[in-house]
Amino acid sequence: MSTSFQPNGIITLLTDFGTQDAYVGAMKGVILSHHDQLRIHDLSHEIPAQNIRHGAFVLKDLLPWFPAGTVHCCVIDPGVGSSRSALILQIRDQLVVAPDNGLISWTGYQPTDPIYEIPMPQGEKATKLSSTFHGRDLFAPMAAALASGAQKLNQLSLLPELPVHISWPDPQKQSETVFKGEVVCIDSFGNCITNITEEDFQNAKRVEVKSNVSVSIRCVQTYSDADDGDFIALIGSSGLMEISSVNSNAAKKLNLGCTSEIKLLC
Amino acid sequence: MSTSFQPNGIITLLTDFGTQDAYVGAMKGVILSHHDQLRIHDLSHEIPAQNIRHGAFVLKDLLPWFPAGTVHCCVIDPGVGSSRSALILQIRDQLVVAPDNGLISWTGYQPTDPIYEIPMPQGEKATKLSSTFHGRDLFAPMAAALASGAQKLNQLSLLPELPVHISWPDPQKQSETVFKGEVVCIDSFGNCITNITEEDFQNAKRVEVKSNVSVSIRCVQTYSDADDGDFIALIGSSGLMEISSVNSNAAKKLNLGCTSEIKLLC
Amino acid sequence: MSTSFQPNGIITLLTDFGTQDAYVGAMKGVILSHHDQLRIHDLSHEIPAQNIRHGAFVLKDLLPWFPAGTVHCCVIDPGVGSSRSALILQIRDQLVVAPDNGLISWTGYQPTDPIYEIPMPQGEKATKLSSTFHGRDLFAPMAAALASGAQKLNQLSLLPELPVHISWPDPQKQSETVFKGEVVCIDSFGNCITNITEEDFQNAKRVEVKSNVSVSIRCVQTYSDADDGDFIALIGSSGLMEISSVNSNAAKKLNLGCTSEIKLLC
Repeated sequence: MSTSFQPNGIITLLTDFGTQDAYVGAMKGVILSHHDQLRIHDLSHEIPAQNIRHGAFVLKDLLPWFPAGTVHCCVIDPGVGSSRSALILQIRDQLVVAPDNGLISWTGYQPTDPIYEIPMPQGEKATKLSSTFHGRDLFAPMAAALASGAQKLNQLSLLPELPVHISWPDPQKQSETVFKGEVVCIDSFGNCITNITEEDFQNAKRVEVKSNVSVSIRCVQTYSDADDGDFIALIGSSGLMEISSVNSNAAKKLNLGCTSEIKLLC
Repeated sequence: MSTSFQPNGIITLLTDFGTQDAYVGAMKGVILSHHDQLRIHDLSHEIPAQNIRHGAFVLKDLLPWFPAGTVHCCVIDPGVGSSRSALILQIRDQLVVAPDNGLISWTGYQPTDPIYEIPMPQGEKATKLSSTFHGRDLFAPMAAALASGAQKLNQLSLLPELPVHISWPDPQKQSETVFKGEVVCIDSFGNCITNITEEDFQNAKRVEVKSNVSVSIRCVQTYSDADDGDFIALIGSSGLMEISSVNSNAAKKLNLGCTSEIKLLC
Repeated sequence: MSTSFQPNGIITLLTDFGTQDAYVGAMKGVILSHHDQLRIHDLSHEIPAQNIRHGAFVLKDLLPWFPAGTVHCCVIDPGVGSSRSALILQIRDQLVVAPDNGLISWTGYQPTDPIYEIPMPQGEKATKLSSTFHGRDLFAPMAAALASGAQKLNQLSLLPELPVHISWPDPQKQSETVFKGEVVCIDSFGNCITNITEEDFQNAKRVEVKSNVSVSIRCVQTYSDADDGDFIALIGSSGLMEISSVNSNAAKKLNLGCTSEIKLLC
């Protein structure tokens, strides 16, 4: 277990705060007040409110693309003000600063990846901690201090217990020719990203969903293998099977949501 | 009254332009064309269209968190093209570049905080000033010049009159046990932020609102003191009382909006 | 035809990805993994999904404001995974990295402005190219390499054919006193931007639209020449005639959309 971490000065922000209020700006102000040369990059502030699973899925998809030394400040935090812990996961030579509520579940962290505890402020500092906005008062200051190098990991304690973990919903093999899976994320285009992997998809003949409309879903390689409005299933950029409707919104047309059941027939 | 200002190279943007059009990008282009090393940070472009009060509330909440030397370029500007003035407020060693329409009202500026006038372009330059987009043609160039140090404050004149001011709606004490207040801002989670301060809230027993639903609103310390869907009142991150519904949208459920009346019973 | 290009280290992003998913963040990660000092600026991620015309209009309006050396990474790409080409337009000493689908049509490019082809990955690299997300796998890596100087333009081939071009809808002169035009873009305020130029507008007396409401649209210089809710026509910041409703949403009130017909009466 290594505690060495060389920050590159980049902080990313991933929240469910929306951008019509002061919340995101206040976090940026706190970070820049710590060190005004830190390079802040917005990942998303439009994670659906309090939707930890959506945040976990987005974080999983993002991490592999960032360089070593990046600090990700991730605040989807419905338990703010409760006794939930706050943590720092060191993974892929990057740091994820987040509440301990399952947000890091699908990053692929291993038992050997160190997870530190963010200490709660004590004494006078505790009185300055808002009970509703730890993004500004706890996570942003810690992320800034880690990104500037002012906070060393070896000055922190490890999280005393295992972090909260949300199980990945593995698809079930119902028979030699039928896999039962589910939708894990709907993207802004209405693509329904499922838990079916590329390997399972290779032999797929067609896909079935429970829907109020009767549909035929073909398995294809790319959008251009089908016509506008056709329902198709293909491997998307997450490496997972997606159900799409060419140039339109499959989720709305099929009335699918997260955890909707799907079947893969081989 | 001091006119010294040391820019740190940071420009923030706060607008009601949304992000589906060219407006925000054009402002960034103008700033980067002035000096391509300026560090631009988005605060919000989703202030509700033409809603100066919402912008004023967000600006109030943001300013204290930014470092000295920051230039905030704030453009919620329904009066663009009229004879309204344009100003630069120097406060907390930061600058706010904005139309003179009340946007700076709640920043806590004092009579000793200097407010400069942005001169309208003359001659050939005037013909290049669009009548609908001073964000690009007036505010962004001034913000960039201030942030790069090319524009000195002592080369500018003070605003000849007092700036437009929107009064903060102070709560009214109706009796020894009843305060009448109002909602001043609805955030994207549906939290209803009121004008009731932490001091007034200390002795509160319960909160009443005029609503189409019959509700009981308890006074608590933090979200986790209540169950999902419960209506609660607590001190939020602005230091003001908020009416919330745990993990859901209080404003929608209670049909509350800005200026909705609320009562605090002690 | 010059192939010299001096990058300034700025990359802008213009997409229809929205910001609730991992797509934008993944592009930023790819760019920062190439070179972590590149300065990324968001232009828009809210171009309506698959709406190439809206993207083309926004790009046209943005380009003139950016400094020489900027690389624009523009991904509105409904044809992803098909045989559509990918290109780099060199214009105004800036680069536009985009799919060859008409997105660059209205930038004012000339036959002398060089357009390069982005080579499709071959061999092992081809297997890493997702069939649904060239923003991450093709355009972002190329934009990063151009912005850092690692990719030289003279190592690339010119696009072998003319790029896909969407014709600008020129207004038609129906008689000495009547111009027939159309709405080319609706902005987030509901302003209806048309194809009528400032020159044609100079002698305009009034404007007519086909609408379910009976309206009178006056020609004015600026919003403040009219009262709240009035329908007006004026030259907006694009240098084109816009139909607006003061402090409200003209497009919704008049039920106008892109390509809606309008008439200018002189």
